[in-house]
Amino acid sequence: MKKIVPAISGLVAGFVAASVFFADFTTIGSKTTAGDVKAKSNAEKVYVPFGKKDDYYLFASGGHSGQMFIYGVPSMRKIRTIPVFSPDAATGYGWDKESKAMLGGYTWGDLHHPAFSETKGEYDGKYMFATDVANNRAAVMDLKTFAVKDILKVPNTSGPHCAAFVTENTEHMFLPTRFAVPFGHKYASLDDYSKTYKGVMSVVSFNEGNKKLKLDYQVALPPWSFDLSDAGKKTSSDWAVLTTYNTEEATTNMEINASQKDRDYIVLFNWKELDKMVKDGKYDTVSGVKVIDPAKQKGAIYLIPVAKSPHGVDVTPDGKRFIASGKLAPTMTVFSFEKAFDAVKNKKFQGEQDGIPVLDYKSVMEREVNPENALGPLHTQFDDKGFAYTTMFISSEIVKWNVNTGETVDRVPVQYSPGHSVSTEGDSASPDGKWIIALNKLAKDSYLSVGPSHPESMQLIDISDKMEVIQSAPVDPEPHYAQMIKADKLNPIVVYPKDEKRPDSVWSQEKAHIERKGNEVHVYGIAMRSKFVFDAKAKRRDAVTVKQGDKVVFHITNIDLDQDITHGFAINSYNQNMEIQPGETKTMEFVADKAGSYPLYCTNFCSALHQEMSGYLLVEPK
Amino acid sequence: MKKIVPAISGLVAGFVAASVFFADFTTIGSKTTAGDVKAKSNAEKVYVPFGKKDDYYLFASGGHSGQMFIYGVPSMRKIRTIPVFSPDAATGYGWDKESKAMLGGYTWGDLHHPAFSETKGEYDGKYMFATDVANNRAAVMDLKTFAVKDILKVPNTSGPHCAAFVTENTEHMFLPTRFAVPFGHKYASLDDYSKTYKGVMSVVSFNEGNKKLKLDYQVALPPWSFDLSDAGKKTSSDWAVLTTYNTEEATTNMEINASQKDRDYIVLFNWKELDKMVKDGKYDTVSGVKVIDPAKQKGAIYLIPVAKSPHGVDVTPDGKRFIASGKLAPTMTVFSFEKAFDAVKNKKFQGEQDGIPVLDYKSVMEREVNPENALGPLHTQFDDKGFAYTTMFISSEIVKWNVNTGETVDRVPVQYSPGHSVSTEGDSASPDGKWIIALNKLAKDSYLSVGPSHPESMQLIDISDKMEVIQSAPVDPEPHYAQMIKADKLNPIVVYPKDEKRPDSVWSQEKAHIERKGNEVHVYGIAMRSKFVFDAKAKRRDAVTVKQGDKVVFHITNIDLDQDITHGFAINSYNQNMEIQPGETKTMEFVADKAGSYPLYCTNFCSALHQEMSGYLLVEPK
Repeated sequence: MKKIVPAISGLVAGFVAASVFFADFTTIGSKTTAGDVKAKSNAEKVYVPFGKKDDYYLFASGGHSGQMFIYGVPSMRKIRTIPVFSPDAATGYGWDKESKAMLGGYTWGDLHHPAFSETKGEYDGKYMFATDVANNRAAVMDLKTFAVKDILKVPNTSGPHCAAFVTENTEHMFLPTRFAVPFGHKYASLDDYSKTYKGVMSVVSFNEGNKKLKLDYQVALPPWSFDLSDAGKKTSSDWAVLTTYNTEEATTNMEINASQKDRDYIVLFNWKELDKMVKDGKYDTVSGVKVIDPAKQKGAIYLIPVAKSPHGVDVTPDGKRFIASGKLAPTMTVFSFEKAFDAVKNKKFQGEQDGIPVLDYKSVMEREVNPENALGPLHTQFDDKGFAYTTMFISSEIVKWNVNTGETVDRVPVQYSPGHSVSTEGDSASPDGKWIIALNKLAKDSYLSVGPSHPESMQLIDISDKMEVIQSAPVDPEPHYAQMIKADKLNPIVVYPKDEKRPDSVWSQEKAHIERKGNEVHVYGIAMRSKFVFDAKAKRRDAVTVKQGDKVVFHITNIDLDQDITHGFAINSYNQNMEIQPGETKTMEFVADKAGSYPLYCTNFCSALHQEMSGYLLVEPK
Repeated sequence: MKKIVPAISGLVAGFVAASVFFADFTTIGSKTTAGDVKAKSNAEKVYVPFGKKDDYYLFASGGHSGQMFIYGVPSMRKIRTIPVFSPDAATGYGWDKESKAMLGGYTWGDLHHPAFSETKGEYDGKYMFATDVANNRAAVMDLKTFAVKDILKVPNTSGPHCAAFVTENTEHMFLPTRFAVPFGHKYASLDDYSKTYKGVMSVVSFNEGNKKLKLDYQVALPPWSFDLSDAGKKTSSDWAVLTTYNTEEATTNMEINASQKDRDYIVLFNWKELDKMVKDGKYDTVSGVKVIDPAKQKGAIYLIPVAKSPHGVDVTPDGKRFIASGKLAPTMTVFSFEKAFDAVKNKKFQGEQDGIPVLDYKSVMEREVNPENALGPLHTQFDDKGFAYTTMFISSEIVKWNVNTGETVDRVPVQYSPGHSVSTEGDSASPDGKWIIALNKLAKDSYLSVGPSHPESMQLIDISDKMEVIQSAPVDPEPHYAQMIKADKLNPIVVYPKDEKRPDSVWSQEKAHIERKGNEVHVYGIAMRSKFVFDAKAKRRDAVTVKQGDKVVFHITNIDLDQDITHGFAINSYNQNMEIQPGETKTMEFVADKAGSYPLYCTNFCSALHQEMSGYLLVEPK
């Protein structure tokens, strides 16, 4: 592979200006031209003919779309957008009463790092978690239905970017913030930044019984930016690590001022110790939240110096090491948990920062890895043979290297500027070592142009042998992290169970009825191929008449219990629509403030007579 | 192909219950097993290696997502979601001032049939039109930027499903309604349906100069449901046709009551005559709109009886015939424009309906086509050799047939329940005859399960020889129609031009400034890798301080004029985000009603220091 690398100026400005212009990709594409004889062509490797299914699910962060994107691998076909933090007209998420309440009035989110629930460090296929950098929320999706069950609004916090990564048995996920703000999001001058602004780590747990997320407590950290984290595994399972930048505590012109020091920190903490502190009452209560101050409560949190402005920190599958990638230094640093525990035990501190002990770098560091000409290391994934794969944002490649020796084993150019990557079950305790996908930030002219705003790009790389990009897929904004899980670990339901005790549900046409309570009109109706029935006794069973100003509440049950027979329920001109999946009951409520005759109709094509599945909302003038 | 067809009951209930359970697809998939020697495998036919691009753009309706989906063909990779009728967090569409105003407060749409602008009946690659069934709107997208330039709210109308299909030189598009409502959307009892409800056809034009849509006039039609339409070509270019159902004028239980009569109508009209009537003042003014009453103004509109509840009506590429597909009759009916013109000229009427002349069926009909065992014909597309391809919703297949003879030439099962299909430039005056894509309503278990709500499914069929499904792609809800255009017909811009006279734009860091006007704070700022500058003279050039209650107006120009360097601009906790493409200026305005310190940041990953591209909005308490 021919590769042109410019002289490195060492200036930040140089790094940035140089991004994506380095590698010479003249050989790309030629591998697939005619005449190249292979046992199985790349085309065949990614082709999934009708009647067969993909081997892996890819759950990709949808970034500032606020949603999650589900892809099949190896075909790289997008199967579905699952709404999480933003309303979704396609499914009516944010319109029906329950999802509207969950969204809490927010109309977008910035979904960063998705995380599967884990059992013994393995993806157990039960739940998926994610966090919202925009409006400071966490969410949980049930993988039986692919529906979000709860959204937790987290106070005292701003931009929980450094999440979600769950502990080995899903005891916790940690949400440290990218942005420091005063407690309670109060106003304070930036002149008082170091004193009044805080970086806050929220510690959240999930109750599988009631399917709710809970904020257990928070930790008040210095006003640094916390970037990414990972939980320990096996011998390190009580611990977690996270990266920091802006330990300079700069308040302006961050591209320069937050990159002054040669070293920032890894935060290493023992979450079992933190849990214990809370149990023992060793916390303050701030804005109603239990908050641990690590300067006061010692013994759980430590700092480790690391090459400046690290981005990812990733724990090896065996739980023995963690690897920090130095975004602004061409270095992956391998740290040893065992050495760190030893340093903690023997107090090998090189000082304190904000009251937090700083471990001696050399006592904890095992190896600095600098693959030749590789620039901008961001994230590391793993395979089943002890190799690490690190994305290089600036030199636009993935480098495969030996964790035990630091030796570079292989490398492959990607197009362009990869942020995260994801390998098959690649951050679990037992990666599969089959595929890695580069989540590229820039597509340039890789795909048919759709104007000045380009798609992002994901590239599938076969890592079973010599690394090779075998498929490229454009993607909507904007995958940050993703996780891949073996398809057979998921077993979603096909139809919601017919639960006759479900509140507000109605299971036969004859039972459909309307109740008027003051100025509230409750409609207990059904949807079935190919009609709505709202009132079994009415002259027109598919029409609802209300008075202008009434609050109208539609409770609709889809009584078609057949696979894939989803109905929609929309009201023309009233800006209302919701999806009702087979066997589901959904509630829509609004005030009928406009008099007039408004057609209502099914939005999900359901039968040959789908178009006839309609009726009227008649709003009599006041 | 083995095919099991049940006895047909003739009852509507039978049709519906039977849908999708007919065909035996046991042979599917076996064509791609090893050992099958082909010159080029199906895998290779759809594989587009990195460095090469797809041959065609597919513009697919996003149905009740409200958006347009852009795919590449033959790879069937989704390139981008283009927001049209719903807000889109990923791009900030609906947040910046301009797009927010365009959406007019609506948070979803139901985008039905997309239509390219045409010149001489050919897609000219300049604009894309679409309509919204949910909130009665029409939109135009500029294919230089893939940005929506105008949205027209259409009064007096409810569910313009029967659109958009443009005339041969984009003189008009027609928006007849699926739902009848009283004029002005007023309240009226359904008992008075036939008298007071109207089916309205809106006639819209597009001004390429100011990029605006305009409602030219409306036609008051009987209160029927108008379903689909097509404009004539060449000798028929002054004419257009549309399908109707519910000519029974039923007001409840439509699946039964709107399917009583054996025949509904095709509406045939001469739009140049309608234009002339308006020019000659032959209209009434209703709610401020010019409305033609065809019962009063004769000579432009005619009815043609057709097999009950037709869905699609499609004009052949030569403009000589139109084909209606009888959703509830297993028949495609071929009509002759020449015969219709002759019937009009010689007044071969078989009567009148609502004051509109009804042409004699046998005088206009050329052929009824009934492919053996094919059920539920919906839509027809064309190739370059005179063949028609009709989707069969109930028997789940596409049937290829000879328009001149009615003879069935080929057929292929699709999975499952195809609504529309789209062939390469297949409704233009010169189809390419390379591919057809079935837009299937049901996927059942075709893909990895994502819970009870399934994706829809598109299947790519090679029509250059014996028809064969060679690729299946899941798709978000819900493509209705789509159009495919040769990739080389589009030539989007890469970067917005640096226009220093553009209102509110600022093109250098030094010119960034803040103006206070009463309680409005206007920020004229720039975004560039990797910072925001709001006020060149401030101590912190990336922070903005306002008073609680101020209206804050950010005008941000992205001064990075490089391909694919899009920036985002988000404010944490303030539910604000917008995308600013290279060279673009965008405005965001909101009232700073919450006091506090709020981080702002770039949401589109733009450089190695993207994370550092941040600042603060400081809202001082009242």
